[in-house]
Amino acid sequence: MTPVERTGSASAMLTDLYQVTMAFAYWKAGMLNTEACFHLYFRSNPFGGGFTVACGLEQAIEYLKGLSFSERDTEYLATLTGSDDKPLFGAEFLAWLRRFDFTCDVLGVPEGTVAFPNEPLLRVTGPIAQCQLLETTLLNIINFQTLVATKAARVCRAAEGDPVIEFGLRRAQGPDGGLSASRAAYVGGCVGTSNVLAGQRFGIPVGGTHAHSWVMAFDDELDSFLAYAEAMPNNGVFLVDTYDTVQGVRNAIRAGERLRELGHALVGVRIDSGDLAWLSKRARELLDAAGFTETKIYASNELDEYLIESLKDQGARIDVWGVGTKLATAYDQPALGGVYKLSAIREAGGVWDPRLKVTEHMAKATTPGLLRVRRYSDADGMFAGDMIYDELHPPGDECVMVDPADATRRTGYCGTRGAEELLVPVFAAGDLVYEMPPLAASRERALTQLAHLDPSHRRFLNPHVYKVGLELGLHERKTALILEARGLGTR
Amino acid sequence: MTPVERTGSASAMLTDLYQVTMAFAYWKAGMLNTEACFHLYFRSNPFGGGFTVACGLEQAIEYLKGLSFSERDTEYLATLTGSDDKPLFGAEFLAWLRRFDFTCDVLGVPEGTVAFPNEPLLRVTGPIAQCQLLETTLLNIINFQTLVATKAARVCRAAEGDPVIEFGLRRAQGPDGGLSASRAAYVGGCVGTSNVLAGQRFGIPVGGTHAHSWVMAFDDELDSFLAYAEAMPNNGVFLVDTYDTVQGVRNAIRAGERLRELGHALVGVRIDSGDLAWLSKRARELLDAAGFTETKIYASNELDEYLIESLKDQGARIDVWGVGTKLATAYDQPALGGVYKLSAIREAGGVWDPRLKVTEHMAKATTPGLLRVRRYSDADGMFAGDMIYDELHPPGDECVMVDPADATRRTGYCGTRGAEELLVPVFAAGDLVYEMPPLAASRERALTQLAHLDPSHRRFLNPHVYKVGLELGLHERKTALILEARGLGTR
Repeated sequence: MTPVERTGSASAMLTDLYQVTMAFAYWKAGMLNTEACFHLYFRSNPFGGGFTVACGLEQAIEYLKGLSFSERDTEYLATLTGSDDKPLFGAEFLAWLRRFDFTCDVLGVPEGTVAFPNEPLLRVTGPIAQCQLLETTLLNIINFQTLVATKAARVCRAAEGDPVIEFGLRRAQGPDGGLSASRAAYVGGCVGTSNVLAGQRFGIPVGGTHAHSWVMAFDDELDSFLAYAEAMPNNGVFLVDTYDTVQGVRNAIRAGERLRELGHALVGVRIDSGDLAWLSKRARELLDAAGFTETKIYASNELDEYLIESLKDQGARIDVWGVGTKLATAYDQPALGGVYKLSAIREAGGVWDPRLKVTEHMAKATTPGLLRVRRYSDADGMFAGDMIYDELHPPGDECVMVDPADATRRTGYCGTRGAEELLVPVFAAGDLVYEMPPLAASRERALTQLAHLDPSHRRFLNPHVYKVGLELGLHERKTALILEARGLGTR
Repeated sequence: MTPVERTGSASAMLTDLYQVTMAFAYWKAGMLNTEACFHLYFRSNPFGGGFTVACGLEQAIEYLKGLSFSERDTEYLATLTGSDDKPLFGAEFLAWLRRFDFTCDVLGVPEGTVAFPNEPLLRVTGPIAQCQLLETTLLNIINFQTLVATKAARVCRAAEGDPVIEFGLRRAQGPDGGLSASRAAYVGGCVGTSNVLAGQRFGIPVGGTHAHSWVMAFDDELDSFLAYAEAMPNNGVFLVDTYDTVQGVRNAIRAGERLRELGHALVGVRIDSGDLAWLSKRARELLDAAGFTETKIYASNELDEYLIESLKDQGARIDVWGVGTKLATAYDQPALGGVYKLSAIREAGGVWDPRLKVTEHMAKATTPGLLRVRRYSDADGMFAGDMIYDELHPPGDECVMVDPADATRRTGYCGTRGAEELLVPVFAAGDLVYEMPPLAASRERALTQLAHLDPSHRRFLNPHVYKVGLELGLHERKTALILEARGLGTR
C-alpha cells in the first residue's frame, strides 16, 4: 500500500494491552469456543445536544478487513514480561495470534444515521477472545468520527444552509486527527475541506487560496493581490485582514477589476479577524458599490456553532463559513464517551446467557441480550421514537417501549409498520457482507436523517429529548437481572 | 514500509490546499528564488498553566525527510479546478512539485525542553514556496504533541512522583491521535501506556491486565479472578469494581493467596469507579490486614491533574494512576494555538528584510528577524529568564531584554554566561544534521528541565509568569516597524 492509503488506518496492534492479555487468558482458560455479544454505544449526546450522527463505519470495516498480527508484531509481544520478569505470553498463543482468523458477525448503523444514547452503533458477536481484541480500536475509530460528524451537523445547522468549509488540520490532534476529522465533518454536512489529503483520499471537495504570509511577502497588499490575480486568476478569493480589513477589501476590489479584465471573477474576500459582523457588512457595502454583488464574503477565526448563530443574529453578511479548530477537535467536548460492553455469552452453538454490569444507577447499567434498534416514523416521515429490543425475544405486533431512565414512562407501538431497522449486517462469520456507500451518499444520508428529526431535538439549548425506549420484555428481563445481581431476585 | 511504520506519519499531501496554491503562485510570480524565514510558536501556555513542554520534533523530522509528491499526488492535483472550471495548476508546476527538493535550514527546540509563549519551537529558512508548503503539517505535528506532553507533565506533577500510566487510546482523536498522544504523554513524564502499538513503535513500557468483561464472562467474580490468576500468574492486577468494590478487593485477596501458592505476587488491584478516596483507603486496610502490604492500588476513571490533586488532598491511598481521555485529548484545552509566521524575506543571497503582521494589540504582533532564544540560569541552575534575539543583530556582552507585553519591564543580562541556546540546527540546506536522541532521553530531558523550573511556574492556579523578553535592539526594531506600518514611522 502507498503511504496515502495507510495514513489514518489502524492496525491490530493499535489496542490496549489488556485486550491481548485477556485474549491470552481466554485461550489459556480453554474458553476459545465461548462466544460473546458486545455492543458499542454511548450514554449521552455530545455537546449537550439532542442528537448524534453515526460516523466511521468505513474505517472500522477497513480495520476489521485488515486485522492480522505480523511476525514482527508477535516478536514484539514475545518481549513483554510480567512481574516475574518472564514472558507474559507463551509461544503457542503467539502462534495462534499469527493465525488469527476473524470470524465474528458484525452489525452496524450506516454512516450518517442519526443515533441516540444507549443505541448500539456496532454489535459484535463471536468467540469472546476475538470480540475482545477489537474493543479499543473500534471505540477509537467510531468515537472520534461520530463526535466530529455531530459537531459538523451542529455547525451547519447554525449556518442555516450557508456552505461550511472545514479547515482544522493545523490544530487537529495529529495527522490522522486532521484526516479523520475532515472526513467526518464532510459526512456531518460540511461542503469541503482545506485538507488536500482528505480530498485525494476521500474525494471531498477542497478549497483554498492564500494566507497572510503571501501578503507579507510583498511590499504592499495591493501588489500582493494583483500578483495573485495574475498567477491564479481562476482562484480569486483574497484574504483582506493582514493590515487593515476595510482597506483590504478596497484592494481586493482593485484586484477584482483586474480579474474582470482577465475574464475572471472576484469569487470572494475572506475576513479572518476582528469584528466579523461589522466588517462583513462594511465589506458587502463596498463590494456592492463597486458592482461586485456576486462576490462572496468568507469568514473564519475560531468559529463554532454558537459564534455562527450569534453572527447570524447580528445580521452579519457572511456567505461562506470556514471552521477549523473548534470543529476538527470538537473543542468543547473533545471525546465521545462511547463504550463497548458485553451483553451475552454462550458456549458455541449453545443458548445465549444474558449478562449485565450493575452500577449504582439502573439508568447506567448495561442492557443484556442481542440488541437491535427499530426506528418508528410518523405519518409525515418524521422520526417518532426508537425501540431497543433483543432479537432473541423479538417483539410482537403490539409492543410497548419503556424509558430506560424512568420505567413509568411507556409508549405503545405497533409491530414494524413504518419502522426501520437501524443495525444492518456488516460482517457475517468474518466475511464482509455490507456494500459501503460512497462518502457523498453517507453525507446525503446525514442531511436527510437530520431533516426527519424534529427541530426541537436539534436546537442547542435544552433540546427536546428524543424518545428511545427498551421493548417491554427486554426492560423486564433487565430489571429481573439487576434485582438478581443485587440479591433481590425472585427467580 | 509496513503498516506499523506508516501509522501516525504525515505525507506531503497532508496540508491545506492554500499552501499548494501559494506555492504555485510564487512559482508563477517568478519568486522561486525569494527566501523567507518562518517561526513556529504559540502565544500562551495551554491549560492556563505557566509552562509548556516542547514535543514532536522527531515526527516533524520524519515528515521533512520523506517530503515528496508522487505521481499519484500530482495526478490528483491536476484534477482540481478553479472558478472557470479549468485546472488550478499547470503541468509545468506539477512537474516541479514532482521534482520537489527540500533545501531549507531548520532549527528546532529539542523535545522535552520547557518552552514559553512567543519562543520559536521551529525556525525554517529557505525558498518561500518550500517554507510555505510545510506550514500546516509542522503545526499539526508540533501543536498536538506539545499539548499532550504539557498535559502529561501537569498530571505527573499532581501525582507527586507516583507512576502515571496513559491509557486514552479508546477515546483519543483517531488512530494517530492515540499513538501520538501515547508518545507525547511519555515524554511529558508518564511511565507507560496501555497502547501496544506505541510500545512496539516507540519502545514505551506497556501494561494492562483485564477489563470488566473478563469478570462478566464468568458466573462469579471470584471464579474470574482465580481463572485469571491461573492463566497469567505473572500479571496479577485485578479490576475490582465490576459489581461491588469492597467485595472485589476481598476476592482479589483470595486470588492473591492463590498467586502466592503459585509463587507469584498480587501486584495490584484497580478501582475504576466510585469514590476513589474512600475505596482506596478501604482497599488498603483490607490488603494490609491480609498481609498484602506490597500490593499496589491502581485508580482510574476520568482522572486529570485536578482530580488527582484533590484525591491526594483527601489522603487517597492510590499508588498508580491510570489517566486516559483527559490526557490523550487534552480535554480541557484540546488544541494548542501554535502559529507559523513569516518574519523576514530576501532575494537569494541578498539582505534579509524583516517583516511583521500588525494586529490591534502590539503584544500579538509578530516579531521580525531571524530569531534565536537564549535561556539564562541562576547560580543554582534554576531557569531565570529567556531572551529572544535576532541573530542578524546578535546582542553584545551587556544586554537588556524587554517584556513583549509591557515595554517598561526590562531586565539586564550579561552575554552568554550560564546561557543555553534553545534552538539547535536540525536541517542544513535540506540535510538532516541533528541526531535525534532516544525517546527515553527526551523524557529525561523533560523531567530535568521541569526540575529546573521554579515551582511557582508549575503550580496550576495563577502560576508565576516566567520571564521571556525581546532583546532590546530587537524590541526597538519591532516597535519602529509597527509604527511604520501604522503610518507613524520616523524612518
